[in-house]
Parts: sequence; C-alpha cells; structure tokens
Amino acid sequence: MTDPKPPTALNLPMMDPLPPETQKYFDICTQKLGMIPNVLQAYAITTEKLNGFTALYNDLMLGDSNLSKLEREMIAVVVSSINKCFYCLVAHGAAVRALSGNPQLGEMLVMNYRVAPLDPRQRAMLDFAALMTTASATIEEPHRQALRDVGFSDRDIWDIANVAGFYNMSNRVASATAMHPNDEYHGQSR
Amino acid sequence: MTDPKPPTALNLPMMDPLPPETQKYFDICTQKLGMIPNVLQAYAITTEKLNGFTALYNDLMLGDSNLSKLEREMIAVVVSSINKCFYCLVAHGAAVRALSGNPQLGEMLVMNYRVAPLDPRQRAMLDFAALMTTASATIEEPHRQALRDVGFSDRDIWDIANVAGFYNMSNRVASATAMHPNDEYHGQSR
Amino acid sequence: MTDPKPPTALNLPMMDPLPPETQKYFDICTQKLGMIPNVLQAYAITTEKLNGFTALYNDLMLGDSNLSKLEREMIAVVVSSINKCFYCLVAHGAAVRALSGNPQLGEMLVMNYRVAPLDPRQRAMLDFAALMTTASATIEEPHRQALRDVGFSDRDIWDIANVAGFYNMSNRVASATAMHPNDEYHGQSR
Amino acid sequence: MTDPKPPTALNLPMMDPLPPETQKYFDICTQKLGMIPNVLQAYAITTEKLNGFTALYNDLMLGDSNLSKLEREMIAVVVSSINKCFYCLVAHGAAVRALSGNPQLGEMLVMNYRVAPLDPRQRAMLDFAALMTTASATIEEPHRQALRDVGFSDRDIWDIANVAGFYNMSNRVASATAMHPNDEYHGQSR
Amino acid sequence: MTDPKPPTALNLPMMDPLPPETQKYFDICTQKLGMIPNVLQAYAITTEKLNGFTALYNDLMLGDSNLSKLEREMIAVVVSSINKCFYCLVAHGAAVRALSGNPQLGEMLVMNYRVAPLDPRQRAMLDFAALMTTASATIEEPHRQALRDVGFSDRDIWDIANVAGFYNMSNRVASATAMHPNDEYHGQSR
Amino acid sequence: MTDPKPPTALNLPMMDPLPPETQKYFDICTQKLGMIPNVLQAYAITTEKLNGFTALYNDLMLGDSNLSKLEREMIAVVVSSINKCFYCLVAHGAAVRALSGNPQLGEMLVMNYRVAPLDPRQRAMLDFAALMTTASATIEEPHRQALRDVGFSDRDIWDIANVAGFYNMSNRVASATAMHPNDEYHGQSR
Repeated sequence: MTDPKPPTALNLPMMDPLPPETQKYFDICTQKLGMIPNVLQAYAITTEKLNGFTALYNDLMLGDSNLSKLEREMIAVVVSSINKCFYCLVAHGAAVRALSGNPQLGEMLVMNYRVAPLDPRQRAMLDFAALMTTASATIEEPHRQALRDVGFSDRDIWDIANVAGFYNMSNRVASATAMHPNDEYHGQSR
Repeated sequence: MTDPKPPTALNLPMMDPLPPETQKYFDICTQKLGMIPNVLQAYAITTEKLNGFTALYNDLMLGDSNLSKLEREMIAVVVSSINKCFYCLVAHGAAVRALSGNPQLGEMLVMNYRVAPLDPRQRAMLDFAALMTTASATIEEPHRQALRDVGFSDRDIWDIANVAGFYNMSNRVASATAMHPNDEYHGQSR
Repeated sequence: MTDPKPPTALNLPMMDPLPPETQKYFDICTQKLGMIPNVLQAYAITTEKLNGFTALYNDLMLGDSNLSKLEREMIAVVVSSINKCFYCLVAHGAAVRALSGNPQLGEMLVMNYRVAPLDPRQRAMLDFAALMTTASATIEEPHRQALRDVGFSDRDIWDIANVAGFYNMSNRVASATAMHPNDEYHGQSR
Repeated sequence: MTDPKPPTALNLPMMDPLPPETQKYFDICTQKLGMIPNVLQAYAITTEKLNGFTALYNDLMLGDSNLSKLEREMIAVVVSSINKCFYCLVAHGAAVRALSGNPQLGEMLVMNYRVAPLDPRQRAMLDFAALMTTASATIEEPHRQALRDVGFSDRDIWDIANVAGFYNMSNRVASATAMHPNDEYHGQSR
Repeated sequence: MTDPKPPTALNLPMMDPLPPETQKYFDICTQKLGMIPNVLQAYAITTEKLNGFTALYNDLMLGDSNLSKLEREMIAVVVSSINKCFYCLVAHGAAVRALSGNPQLGEMLVMNYRVAPLDPRQRAMLDFAALMTTASATIEEPHRQALRDVGFSDRDIWDIANVAGFYNMSNRVASATAMHPNDEYHGQSR
Repeated sequence: MTDPKPPTALNLPMMDPLPPETQKYFDICTQKLGMIPNVLQAYAITTEKLNGFTALYNDLMLGDSNLSKLEREMIAVVVSSINKCFYCLVAHGAAVRALSGNPQLGEMLVMNYRVAPLDPRQRAMLDFAALMTTASATIEEPHRQALRDVGFSDRDIWDIANVAGFYNMSNRVASATAMHPNDEYHGQSR
C-alpha cells in the first residue's frame, strides 16, 4: 500500500501500471516493512532509475562487506546528520535503533556522534565519513592510514567511502526534492 | 589497455580474470576513448560494484532526459569544482570542452562558474546544483520554483537533482581514495 | 532520586547535604517528572549557581510571555540543533513532543526545522532564533521588523531573543562539560 | 541618571516607577560607575528579568572563583570578539583595560587574542572559550584535559565554561536588540 | 627614531645604512607622526620592496580619488576587522578616529561595522569591501550596480576595489609575519 | 595590440595617448607575449596606478629571491584557487605549465593542490600560502617555524608571505571588477 501523499514535492507520478517485477518488489516491502519506503516510490518513475538506485543501495547496504549492517547504517546517519537530511535521519535513525537495540545510540548519531561511546574502530570510521562529508578535498594518505591503524583493510576503506559517498548523494536528492519519510519510522524501536 | 599505475591509493586489485561482459565493456572503452577510465577500473572489484556504478552513471549521464549531455556535464563540473575533486574536474572538464567545442567554457566551470556567460536557464540549473552541494538542507519550494520559472519541468528538476547528487557521491569517493584521472584527459579539446 | 552516573564529565559533587530548599525542589522534580534533570544536579554545586540558573530558566521558559510554552521549547530545539547539543536536543525535543502532541514536529525541529509545516509567524520566530545562533552580528532592523510584520510585539522580540540567547549559553555549557541527559527523556511522547 | 537614548532598538519602557530595590541598585551604579549600564536598563522591564540577569551575572563575574576578575573579563572579550558584539566589546574591553592596567591587552583581546603575550594557562583558557564559541559540539575529554594540564581544577573548568556560555547568550541578546553601550566606556583606561 | 623591538617576528634587518632617500622619508615620518610606522621598517629590507609598498600605498590612500581619505581608512578598518589583523586595526582604527573626530566610529568599524550609523553611500561602500574580503568570487554585476545606484562612478568602484584589495594583502602579510603596531597608536584620538 | 573587449566590467578607458614609457612597455609585452595582459590594460588608467602595480609585481614575481619563479607562480595559483579568481587561475596556471613543463602540475594546483606530488619544502610553502588565504589571523610562530624546518630562511618567509598576500589583493580586484584573461592563455603549454 502506497502512502497517499506523494513522496516528494515534485509532480512525478510512478509508472502506471508498475512493471511486474517492481510490483513484486513493492509487495515484498509492504509485507516485510509494512510500507513501501518513499524513496523507492520516488525513484519508480522509470525502471532504469529505480533499478539504478536499488542495485547500488542493495550492494552497499546489504551486500557482502566486512562492515556490519549496523555500521553501514551508522555511517548513513552520521553523514545525514551533517547534511541535515530529514528523510535519511528518520529512516536510517530507525535502522540504527533496530539493528543496535539501543535507541540512545540512534539519537546520539542523529544529534552529535561525538557523544556516543564508541570503540576506536567505529569512531575512526565515523570520523572518516564525517570528513568526507565536510571537506573531502582535504583527505590524504594519513587519513586512510588512520583507518588501517584501527584494523580496517583497504577493501573496508572502499566500503566506508562508498557508503559515505552514497548518503552524500541521497541526502541531497532527498533535500532537493523535499522527500518525506514514511510515518511508520518515527515510533519504531524507541 | 589498463593504466599501469593503480587507479586509487587503495590496494584493491581488479577482478582477475575480468568476467567476459566486463572485458567486452572495457574493450569498447579502449576502442572509443583510447583508455579505460580509472573510475571503472577502480569499481571493477566485483561485478556488483562495477554494474551498480555504471548502471546509475549511464542512466544519469547518457540516458533519456530533457537535459542535454553537455548540461549534465556542466553540472558535473560545477559540483566537482565546489568539492575540489581532481579526478572529476579533469575528466568532466574535458567532456565540457569536447561537447561544447568551447575550451574556455570548460575552464570557467572548473574555476568559477559565475564568470561564464550563461543563459538564465543554465545559470539557474547550475545555481541549484551549487546550492545542493554547499547547503542542501536549506532548499525549499522557492528554489524549485525558480527552476520551473526558467522553463524546467518537474522531471527536469529530478534529473538536475540526481546528476548533482551523483557527483557529490563520486567526488567524495574519488577524493577519499585518491583516484587519479587518466593522463589522456589533460590535453583533450584544448 | 539522583542518577547514579554524574551529570557531567567534571568531578564536581553536589552540595552535601543539599540545603532544605534545594532538597524540596528536587523532591518536587522527582514527583512530577520522575527524575531530577541532570542540568539541575550539575548546577547544584552552590546555592548561588543553582538559583542563578533556575531563576533565569523559570522566568524565560515558564514565566509570563505571549510566546506559548511550546513556542519557547521550539526555539530551544532549533538553537540546540544548530549547536548540536545532545543534552538539550534530548530534553527539549521531548518537551516539544509532549507539548505539541506531535512527535514528528519534535523530530523535524531536531533534524532540520525548515521541513516542518509551520505558519509564517512561527517560521519567522525560528528563522530569527537560527540567525541569532549562526550570525548574530548581522542582525539589523529589518530582521526585527520581519518579526513585527508577522504580528510579534517588541516585548515578544525581547522574549524570543532571550530564549534563543539562553540556549546558546546552556548548549555550550552542556557540550563543554559533556552533560548527559537523563535516560527518561528518550522514550517520552513518541 | 539614565541615558536619554533607549538602551536597545526595541520599544520597551523600564518599569515606572522602579521598585525601590531596583532604584537603589541603579543609584549605586550611578555613584560607582558614573552611569547605569544600558544592559541593566534594558532588562529592567520586569523585576524577574532584571534579577534573573543580574543574579547570574554577579555570581559569574564577581562571585567566588579561582579565576581572577580580570580573567573572567578576558573570556568575556574573546567570546564577544568572535561574536562581534559591539556592546560587550566596548563594555568588557574597558574592564580588561581597567583591571589589567594594560590598554594594549584590551585591544589585543578585542582584535585577535592570538597576538596577546599570554602565559600558557591563560592562553589555554581563552582557546577553550573560543572553541566553545565557534564549535562547542566538537569539545571532548582531551579539551578538558588540556585545561587540567595547565593547572585548572574541574571547578575552574566549570567556571570557564559558564562565563564563556554567558557571553554567548548576552552577545546574542545585545546584537539581536541593537543594544548600545554607554558613551562613558569608550575613553576609559586608555 | 626606530622602535627598539623588531617590527615583525622575522629576523630581517633593515638596510644599513639606509639609502639617503629612505633616511629622509623616515625622518619626515618621525617629525610628522612621532614614529616610523613599523610596516615601513619591515619593508625596508631592500629599496625595491619599500618603494613598491609605499608607491602603491601612497597612491591608494593619499592620491587623487573621489573617495575621501576618511572613507579609504574606513575601508581599511572594515577589511582588517574581518581578517582580524591586529596591526592594521590599531593603525587604521587610529586614523579613522583622527580623521573623523569620532572615536566611537573607529570602535564601531573595528568591532562590527554594521552597528555604525552610516549613510547609504558609505554603507554600500563598506558592504562591497566586506564582500570582497569574505567571498570575492561571488561578486557579479548587480554588486557593482548597487554601488552605482548610490552615486559611485566606475572610477570610484575601481578605487574601492583597490583599497579593499590592498588591505587583504597587507592584513595577511602583517599576520603572517607577526607585525606589531607602534605603541603610539593606541592612545591617539580617544 | 590591445584586446578589443575592455579588460574589466568597469567603463574606465586607458590613458589616451599612452605616455611614451607605457607605450614602450606595452610594445614589449606584445612582442614577447603576443598580447598585453588585460591586468596591465586595466591599471593603465593613470601612470601612478600602472606603475604602482607593476613595480610591486615585478619585484615580487621577477625580482631577486631564493624562491624560483616557478615557486612564486605556484603560490599564485594556489591562492587564486582558494579565492576562485578566474583571471589569475588562467594567467598563472599557464605560467606554471610553461615554467614547469608539466601541464598536469598546473591543473593540480588549479583544482586541488593537495593532490600534487610535491616535495616537503614546496608542500609546506603552499600550505602556508593557503593558510594565509583562508585564516591569516590564526598564524603564529609554529607556522613560521614549520617553514624554517624545511629549509626556508626568514627572508624566504617574507617572500612567500608577500607573494601570497599580493594574490589575495589582485584576486579580489580582478573578481570585483570582472577582469577577464586574454584568450591567448587558455591553450598555452597544454
């Protein structure tokens, strides 16, 4: 079931009818999440756009990586906090609360990740993601080395960089189009 | 033929051997561009990563849109100029020079797009992309309306937002990994 | 009942024994709120410090004003969001949720007040508070006039300025001392 | 004797007649300082507002503390310099000149405290106050430890934080209301 | 008579002996100003450097222009306030006090020029100088037109731009070398 | 031969006829460079202005110094990159390409000097010039010492500071007046 309010401030109807594969994907969302995330509805303008977004998203956030799913969501929230993206803070803040079982951790990452009691590895990961967000042009070898020094491999650095990069994209698309999060997220895992 | 120097500062070898489809894609690049862009070599760690990146890229930069290919490259350069991404400024600066036949336009967008003699439509487009890059959280309805006022449709706004968003991702991945542009770009279309 | 963890990162014990009036005040807090807010415990170093803080706080947030109590809390949250003060965002975010009966409004003000559907009067009030927080030296007569134009009196402007000023003080004291919010706030009024 | 020009740009008359205690306080000011500081006139809207402000001010700036009165004024000026608050720079710049007997020190703190020849203890104190003013959310344990390392106790840190916090409040109230300093300050202790 | 303390933190002795013309120039300074400004002593490393600096300075600050000498000094102070240059704020703040006969105007321009009661022409001039200092790359035709609209000619705009530019140079040289102002300035024209 | 398009957006004709010395200087430019740089045409309003600019420029960029001419041009480009000055990036980017014989070095300094493979001495020089451009008021003795530590003398530091200062002036004059670079620069030394 789709949200009756359009997912963004743009007048861009979803494909109608939805292609069977998309319909199936959305049905699974409804079943598993109780909603179709508005970001998916927003990208369902063309098959290419929806698939381009979801393929990248699924590989980064759900695919094979040494970063746990929680860690990837933590990066998502810290980047979104700096960019002040309402959509992503609501949706991924809920994910951090759910995956960590720690509602306060979700709040801390939304509000100011520096107050969260993190181990040095996760703190270094989030510092790197934050620096990528605020001043990526200043990143040099010592910043990458700092990640290696707490145990990350070069493949892990690639993954951190790509997750942080991804939310610097989607934060901006969401803010630029006034994408609003589904109501369901707000009360989850409090 | 691949660049002998690795595409980034990370020790991340390409798939070896490359899957046949990737090899074919890279052969086409070599044939048409005289090189395999380093960004593609960098993402060729897994099929999912390479395909995720290229599917999104190809739809945004080469797919169906009311924005001309030059206009999409102009957005790429303006976003990359703000983020000071060496890789993207070199690669997409060359694209602006080639597509416009105007080397000075490429230089202007790299250095300070405000000095370029643009029509109001393109200027509004680049102002929106710049604002998305520096302060996306401040975007509200009047900013979108300013785009409509110079003739952009809501679909065009979606496309502008997604191209600008994409380079805010790839600028950051490139800077975070010290991705370097292929030598071939520098002298092109001067 | 006091929180077993000290209210800040400073080793500053509360007065012991508490003066009878302070004890009475704290008992009322426990009774009405189910906790003694950590900020009060932190200031209970001397009677002068505690009374100085609470007298100002109580007049500004609970005293006579044309601004509703919700509006004062809205200012508190917007200022605290810009200053990224964990303590104040948690405590006053809960207050906005409670006083408005609208959990999403609390989240919006914590994350990016520009996405909240506000009437022009409240939006002008929050824009003024935000500008006081980020660039107070640039405020001139037109900014005050903008508040008068949406119906605020000069007394209202005084109140807005003083509430916004107060949180620019307490945000900084809280962050400088690592003041942490009582656990009770997180789940309230979700 | 009150300044004939209202203390701020707001049309907010003082209580009339002044309550006896306020009148007495103002008479003492006139006697000792040759003026009633405009900030006091501005707050004399209600007894609660005047007393709330003066109680906090008097405890912080004149009350018991290991920080000398000059040091507290130094913090006031450095915070006000960053916030570019005309009222506080004039009033507290005069206080630094008077208490230090060093007019150039007052000028240095107004203009750029980094050029002042300070001992490491005072420099650390002012660096902390400056960081609280520009980026309080980035303060963590090492910043507090740096103060302890030059000899400050935790109580001293509390006092530094509260003085710096206070001027981040009053700077903003002064700028937001166009509070102007009494003429008498300008020529004092030059 | 030269200041016994070297004019900057660099170990760079003046020419010795001074060339006759320089000696004559410095004698005139001593006679007229009661000092040799440290900036001149600092540049007296070689004849070319001293003459290069003074020729430009004298033409800009003392030469033919529709801008009054006071107006040029006002620009100097506003630019130096943004750049927080101690040397230039002291020296040119004194000049504004002397030329205007208004010590408070000098203080206002040092602390926050927006609080100074300026006519629209001088305000526009200082706003342009301030924008040149903080964000010169954003200046476009409307900013120049705003100066024409309050009565400035294109030659006046050239002069404003060059005076503002000059202090953006000398502020930085002074700060980079820890140039300190002569003691004589502090008490002048208070 | 002068460029037919005026050198800036200001309506400020050159001296007419040019004084013989200026004419001779411009003839040499035409002969040696194939053009009269627009900056010289712009300053040719009066003899004093042209000579004031060229005397300072020639001493700094061509006169006696331990900094090579290339190093001075490198500083020019890095400062201009931060200030986003189109004129200076084009003109001095061409100079770096010509003097270094390394077109990519020119591009790197225009786009983000941190990606250039520099020895520690040149990197320290450019870091100092960059800091002078973005935050000169924060420069203190350790920053100067860092230059000495990589082998610079105090005279070298003076030269670095003055070259960096100079482009902070001319960048701003160029941007404030919309000075445009001669077409000849764009294709040089690619």
